[in-house]
Amino acid sequence: MDNSPAFRAVVLTLFPEMFPGPLGFSLAGKALADGLWSLESVDIRTFARDKHRTVDDSPFGGGAGMVLRPDVLDAAIGASHVEETPLIYLTPRGRLMDQPFVRRLAAGPGATLICGRYEGVDQRLLEARGVEEVSLGDFILSGGEPAALALLDAVVRLLPGVVGKVASLEDESFETGLLEYPHYTRPDPWNGREVPEVLKSGHHAKVQAWRRAQAEEITRERRPDMWARYAVKDKTKT
Amino acid sequence: MDNSPAFRAVVLTLFPEMFPGPLGFSLAGKALADGLWSLESVDIRTFARDKHRTVDDSPFGGGAGMVLRPDVLDAAIGASHVEETPLIYLTPRGRLMDQPFVRRLAAGPGATLICGRYEGVDQRLLEARGVEEVSLGDFILSGGEPAALALLDAVVRLLPGVVGKVASLEDESFETGLLEYPHYTRPDPWNGREVPEVLKSGHHAKVQAWRRAQAEEITRERRPDMWARYAVKDKTKT
Repeated sequence: MDNSPAFRAVVLTLFPEMFPGPLGFSLAGKALADGLWSLESVDIRTFARDKHRTVDDSPFGGGAGMVLRPDVLDAAIGASHVEETPLIYLTPRGRLMDQPFVRRLAAGPGATLICGRYEGVDQRLLEARGVEEVSLGDFILSGGEPAALALLDAVVRLLPGVVGKVASLEDESFETGLLEYPHYTRPDPWNGREVPEVLKSGHHAKVQAWRRAQAEEITRERRPDMWARYAVKDKTKT
Repeated sequence: MDNSPAFRAVVLTLFPEMFPGPLGFSLAGKALADGLWSLESVDIRTFARDKHRTVDDSPFGGGAGMVLRPDVLDAAIGASHVEETPLIYLTPRGRLMDQPFVRRLAAGPGATLICGRYEGVDQRLLEARGVEEVSLGDFILSGGEPAALALLDAVVRLLPGVVGKVASLEDESFETGLLEYPHYTRPDPWNGREVPEVLKSGHHAKVQAWRRAQAEEITRERRPDMWARYAVKDKTKT
């Protein structure tokens, strides 16, 4: 039996102490302890070449903020990146992370994630190394670390053996192209509010139809972009 | 002088040990230590009513996964939520988090964030408490905690006194409606690659024009949705 982890994550960061952080607990933490995935956090600063351990410098052309030097980051990548795995830079300039991207990553042997701080990373490094730029969303973080943590959390739960039931992975938002229907549990009633009758009917087909209608309504209302894609896809089905 | 923090964050979670996690380091960690913001993580499980400390139950209507009980979560909210601050549930069913949302939150006195695990939260609780549902993006996490960490990181860096120069906040992606232009720093050349001549010209207007053109090109290529909004906005300017 092969005991190597199904997914090897390498994180390049100026704050290695942020890892595993939240990934050391719950689902991801148990999977890490069980050897289902591995996590190596690499301190970029140890690859600085001067005695001050400088990793950044001011931008050509002027402007606020500092830029990560290409030579320092290149040395960090050279020392830690596993060939044949994606090299990803987390940045608001990247393409938006989504569930198909997460699935693609989880199906592979691992990934190296570059966390920027300061203003950004030298463009020549990104080009020379063929780095994939990925964004968590249209907001600005103080660095790539919270994005790397979220990305790895999303990937790890898809690895074999991490989540018990495959069913609970499939019947979820983005796997159906719709947002999820509302959930209800005990007590019933609660605080003067009752659980919808149909969910207590025991009539499986009616429950399915109600949930589908609810999912469609909430998607149409909250995410017109997703609704438009779903409506098109639905029409092309037989 | 008022010594109360500018922003009070309360996080309701089944894994309070995940906090402050990465927010205990770097920019957010220093601001936390300096009292510029506060973070209270509340263990939902301490509000369970039975001796087994049960927080979840199976969903009405069937299906995989468990649902957080409304009575337990309501008690946790009642004990910790600061009135007049937003009550936010992090879920892929929510409206997408973006920089205007982050700015709105940072301008207020605080927020209470509900982190779900399992299949979700009872819908009646969300309705009874007027909870705002917010999504980090179109991907699935094992729970709301990584999303809460990212949200708080984005908020904290906007609080007064956290980032030194206001300029470095303004000239960024989403504040201009474009993705950021590429950055370059020393050494030059590096690895046979030179920094674009215009950035070394010292000609401020030419540098600005080059950066603008680069930002437009990358936005058009990577984010047609953002480009469409930008192009419309640009036409309505005088």
